[in-house]
Amino acid sequence: MKPYHLGLDVGGTNLAAAIVDNDFNILSHKSIPAGAGRDWQAITADFAAASRAAIDAAGVSIEDIECWGIGMPSCIDTRTGLLVNAHQFGWKNVPIREWLKPLLPLDVRIDNDANCAAYGEALAGAAKGRANVIMLTLGTGVGSGIIIDGHIFKGADGMGAEIGHSTLVQGGRTCNCGRKGCVEAYCSATALIKRGREIFGDACTNAKSIFDKALSGDGRAVDLIDEYATYLAYSLSSVTAIFRPEVLILGGGVADAGDYLLDKVNALMPKATYNGETTGVPPVVRATLGNAAGLIGAAFL
Amino acid sequence: MKPYHLGLDVGGTNLAAAIVDNDFNILSHKSIPAGAGRDWQAITADFAAASRAAIDAAGVSIEDIECWGIGMPSCIDTRTGLLVNAHQFGWKNVPIREWLKPLLPLDVRIDNDANCAAYGEALAGAAKGRANVIMLTLGTGVGSGIIIDGHIFKGADGMGAEIGHSTLVQGGRTCNCGRKGCVEAYCSATALIKRGREIFGDACTNAKSIFDKALSGDGRAVDLIDEYATYLAYSLSSVTAIFRPEVLILGGGVADAGDYLLDKVNALMPKATYNGETTGVPPVVRATLGNAAGLIGAAFL
Repeated sequence: MKPYHLGLDVGGTNLAAAIVDNDFNILSHKSIPAGAGRDWQAITADFAAASRAAIDAAGVSIEDIECWGIGMPSCIDTRTGLLVNAHQFGWKNVPIREWLKPLLPLDVRIDNDANCAAYGEALAGAAKGRANVIMLTLGTGVGSGIIIDGHIFKGADGMGAEIGHSTLVQGGRTCNCGRKGCVEAYCSATALIKRGREIFGDACTNAKSIFDKALSGDGRAVDLIDEYATYLAYSLSSVTAIFRPEVLILGGGVADAGDYLLDKVNALMPKATYNGETTGVPPVVRATLGNAAGLIGAAFL
Repeated sequence: MKPYHLGLDVGGTNLAAAIVDNDFNILSHKSIPAGAGRDWQAITADFAAASRAAIDAAGVSIEDIECWGIGMPSCIDTRTGLLVNAHQFGWKNVPIREWLKPLLPLDVRIDNDANCAAYGEALAGAAKGRANVIMLTLGTGVGSGIIIDGHIFKGADGMGAEIGHSTLVQGGRTCNCGRKGCVEAYCSATALIKRGREIFGDACTNAKSIFDKALSGDGRAVDLIDEYATYLAYSLSSVTAIFRPEVLILGGGVADAGDYLLDKVNALMPKATYNGETTGVPPVVRATLGNAAGLIGAAFL
């Protein structure tokens, strides 16, 4: 393996690129606006521009870089490099790997951003040294990544691992994806804030304000966080019954709210999980790398 | 690989043993009562007795047998051979592999019976030639088996793949396991019959009678089967979002009821599954091997 890796984390707002060494240190970091809405030629040219800037800033030679790993918020067929559906860019069924190949003389590897984040946390973060890890990122939606025996698990055709769109309450709340009762419709930050608005009115615009109210003793906020923790615990218990991971990681702004939520979820897990009181349950921990997780995970695809 | 395999399928009622050749033909089949309730020395002695009878009936030499594969309705730590919990025999945390070793001069391999059934169907039945398969067995409970890249997937510690105890309706019906809202509480044959009794009274004692009523045009039975098919479709869609298998298999008495149920489930799947209308969904098919699936799967552990 060559000494350096190039990771690109493609978001709806920014394109972030980094050079990472084999000890998972980030040697350089460059971020530019994603400029969603422009045509694909312009945007993918900027994929390369951000990446070249990171290479220059690190002062490494392109010959010493193992690969160009890219994490994108998209359903990707990783066997063929086909980007099946990237909502934020309005791209469907585009051969993204072929587009990108001419832009940098490096092997292009591409995967879903939530897979990359889970992989980064397993390599260098909250689950460092663990080979079997599941991570949920609680944000606008619920991203998920599954690591089995040290490898990203993506399902038979590379388009799976969508825990956010497994069912938590059949026939329940309508999800962004059009289905009813998805984990995402209950466990995303958006879902929590929406419930907060129902209770506290339009002044409730973020998850932190709900946690602050709960911590200051507001009974309605305590009840709401209890409800949310229960949704999370049952979502995590379902994947635990199936995967029995060594550790479960929560990422995203909601997870950063503090130990209050994590403590509740961990307390619920033994009863919520099949055979949990007999066989034990994995600890639920907070992601530690923040945005770097996706970059490191992408760099090591 | 040696030419023959010995499989033992341990049920609460019967112990069935078979010699299977490398083309998955069953050369002999012996079944004796399980005699649950007796002490473990007597029952495991009968594991060996049934198995020796199958060897004798096939007329093969024990030297030509690859292994003694055993499928049991139990949570098993397959790394250590520890049988964590076998409800039907009242056994907990017993080192089953060590118990069995002295009884037959063969390498002992042991796994959950639902895993064995899925593996058998993938090797020689409804999913022959497919490497990525999920099977649900709809009976008293909901057994499940997951095949990834041709191998039984059991989770990181060998005790996973319990789809029946993932959540379908959080906070919903109480399951046999004590949790609420499990797939098993909605999709087992028992759950269907229980709903049938609520509608049709105590005369409703089996699933077939409900299907018969529906086929003869009873609107309440049609509605009940529609409800049950929806539970099944959403359970299958959750694992499809995660595993993207090539084929989904339904086993057990309910699945044998005919195409009526399968047609409904298949019709529901594209809408029920995340991105299902864009990326396609796996076909839901009926198991074809019946009880032989568990024997063949066990024999090839």
